[in-house]
Amino acid sequence: MQKKRVVIVGMGFGGVRAARALAGSGCDLLLIDRNNFHLFQPLLYQVASAGLEQESIAQPIRAMARQWPGARFTLTEVRAVDLAKRELQTDTGCIPYDYLILGAGSATNFFGLGTVQQHAFDLKELEDAEVLRNHILQAFERAVCEPDPARRRALMTFVIVGGGPTGVEFAGALIELVNFVLAKDYPELATHTARVVLVEAMDRLLAAMPEQLGMYTLKKLRSMSVEVLLNAQVVDADGERVVLHDGAVIPAHTLVWSAGVKAAPLAETLAVPHARGGRIPVEPDLSLAGYPEVFVTGDMAWLEQEGAVLPMTAPVAMQMGIYAARAIIAREQGNQLPPFQYRDKGSMATIGKNAAVASAFGMQLRGYPAWLAWLMLHVYYLIGFRNRIVVLLNWIWYYWFHERQVRLITRRKQHEA
Amino acid sequence: MQKKRVVIVGMGFGGVRAARALAGSGCDLLLIDRNNFHLFQPLLYQVASAGLEQESIAQPIRAMARQWPGARFTLTEVRAVDLAKRELQTDTGCIPYDYLILGAGSATNFFGLGTVQQHAFDLKELEDAEVLRNHILQAFERAVCEPDPARRRALMTFVIVGGGPTGVEFAGALIELVNFVLAKDYPELATHTARVVLVEAMDRLLAAMPEQLGMYTLKKLRSMSVEVLLNAQVVDADGERVVLHDGAVIPAHTLVWSAGVKAAPLAETLAVPHARGGRIPVEPDLSLAGYPEVFVTGDMAWLEQEGAVLPMTAPVAMQMGIYAARAIIAREQGNQLPPFQYRDKGSMATIGKNAAVASAFGMQLRGYPAWLAWLMLHVYYLIGFRNRIVVLLNWIWYYWFHERQVRLITRRKQHEA
Repeated sequence: MQKKRVVIVGMGFGGVRAARALAGSGCDLLLIDRNNFHLFQPLLYQVASAGLEQESIAQPIRAMARQWPGARFTLTEVRAVDLAKRELQTDTGCIPYDYLILGAGSATNFFGLGTVQQHAFDLKELEDAEVLRNHILQAFERAVCEPDPARRRALMTFVIVGGGPTGVEFAGALIELVNFVLAKDYPELATHTARVVLVEAMDRLLAAMPEQLGMYTLKKLRSMSVEVLLNAQVVDADGERVVLHDGAVIPAHTLVWSAGVKAAPLAETLAVPHARGGRIPVEPDLSLAGYPEVFVTGDMAWLEQEGAVLPMTAPVAMQMGIYAARAIIAREQGNQLPPFQYRDKGSMATIGKNAAVASAFGMQLRGYPAWLAWLMLHVYYLIGFRNRIVVLLNWIWYYWFHERQVRLITRRKQHEA
Repeated sequence: MQKKRVVIVGMGFGGVRAARALAGSGCDLLLIDRNNFHLFQPLLYQVASAGLEQESIAQPIRAMARQWPGARFTLTEVRAVDLAKRELQTDTGCIPYDYLILGAGSATNFFGLGTVQQHAFDLKELEDAEVLRNHILQAFERAVCEPDPARRRALMTFVIVGGGPTGVEFAGALIELVNFVLAKDYPELATHTARVVLVEAMDRLLAAMPEQLGMYTLKKLRSMSVEVLLNAQVVDADGERVVLHDGAVIPAHTLVWSAGVKAAPLAETLAVPHARGGRIPVEPDLSLAGYPEVFVTGDMAWLEQEGAVLPMTAPVAMQMGIYAARAIIAREQGNQLPPFQYRDKGSMATIGKNAAVASAFGMQLRGYPAWLAWLMLHVYYLIGFRNRIVVLLNWIWYYWFHERQVRLITRRKQHEA
């Protein structure tokens, strides 16, 4: 393989796997991300619910790149891709490429609900989780000083939109935070009156999983006193109240949106046709039609397989990243890979302590076995040995002592220099 | 003891000890802080040098207060003390008191150097450490993309003002971060040309410790390639250059100020005479002249003993906090304590791996034994068992693998809601 320059944009699940596979293959490998760390997004909700420190779910990219021969990293944001010239426009200048792997991920999709977007919290970036954690804890501190019972209740009401894995996991983690931890922290508050409301537009939770698991999840969440509203939609919000499609009003100081994602804004800048959610349709080998040197992976890619579009999940991104890397290596050796084939290894979601659901290879798990499987898989996929230990330590602490240590309200200060 | 209300302002080293001593004594104990956590300031420099996550040196106040019978906590900022009316004006309203323990700590003292204050980083609050860590790592990322060698060097030049424990410890931690960790992260940079310059106005380092230890520290830092400038002062800065008293200019992108502290701004609002640094002179029992129900502890208090003013350190604050609590309990029982007597248990500073200095009870330690003593004492005084484990884990990691995991550049986002 001649010294071709392969540029990977986005060090998420796909980008990291692609870089690993290309390392040492003889190419000039340039990694680009606007953060200097890889984020383990599936545990973001645990940072937001004061269970984990943000550092434990992030791994510095340079710490990984050290071990990848031929790889360099540039911290910058890509603004546009010039497909004809084969170069990227970035905040730090133009970057030419021979091959490009685009895996910039996704952004939250508010589906045009302006007031919701303005007032809702979302959970995509590391800082979102810290901002949301601060907001939740601050709400309880404000509730202590609030003389009006109605306003106090609204400060302790949390509406979560979206009954997918993130919404379910965050709702469970939040009600446990309130009932197990904050109940002890705030003896002066009637924390049992705190409300966690999960709003789902469809008639069931976890639509991507078998129906029985959705039913189990619904029962389990309700037994934990999460209020689950099915067939309901949030249409308006103002920071104090959340309005549903039927006009019902929930007085709530906090609204969390996990009801949809769309391709990252970078996808829009590409002069190619787009599919739903701004995603980019790709060829069976994940390349861009007419631009065989450009591969699109992960949440940005739109690919139908067996009659369904591949979901925007970490396993899809990982498999796509590895495939794109191998396709480049094969092409440089004059070979060609068979088309990309996603292998569904199943999916899982945790609901609370000792309770999760998992489905894989036609099998279904629920309750304790699923929870244990969830826990082990997440520790396994987390990058960085120290991170694994810190995360396990936090989980053990919580399991034994019902204590979440990271309930800090951090301040944010901008430096003028 | 009748149900008297004791209000403690500031949950630093003094406030926490006072609260512990007063818990269960039958008083109505109200704890006030503008943060919801106690900060272990002595390790702040390790957060700034990417060695520790910020969460591991902070302990939620409510987690401690749970264990203190009769104690409540209010998250608010005290704006003024009305000594005559015996009440506090705070962001959340008026708070009356029968006894008051004022331990709001200190703020950085720039001694009127406006441009320095504007451009320098300081290390007092938790967010300062994260902001400084982000800035240092960002400087290296910018250096990678900087074509001009002079500007690249300036990006990799760090001027630290103040040869006390904080300045010494931070200089050592920073040069080790550069030489042990970042040198591997940035193979494209000549990191050995990075400069860490420690500027001290006096003719020696660690003025509060015996002279031999200051000499050892100077030699050790220089052997680690820290540039130590004695008898030198920083008088001006603009974010790109630092100007010394003799007109010498150091092109440096980063200036860290640890050359002085003064009493927290709250001290100014008290209608009493002030001493140097805005500190408040106290009676031998730490009470305010004319206001025997008000005690001032820690950095805010100005008390001479054996011909010298007590230093603004954690041990002084801890002993004062305990004394103030006991004085209140004694007074309620109709007794009186003998005057406050500070017991100097010594002081210590760590320079780098296996190297520290300590002096206690007339003994002097240096090198490995001092470093081990420093390490054990800091873990001992850190609050929170989980925090101790996480800190130890980070130190072991660093010691064995020369790896500092927490080198993230976090973003800061304000939520509009």
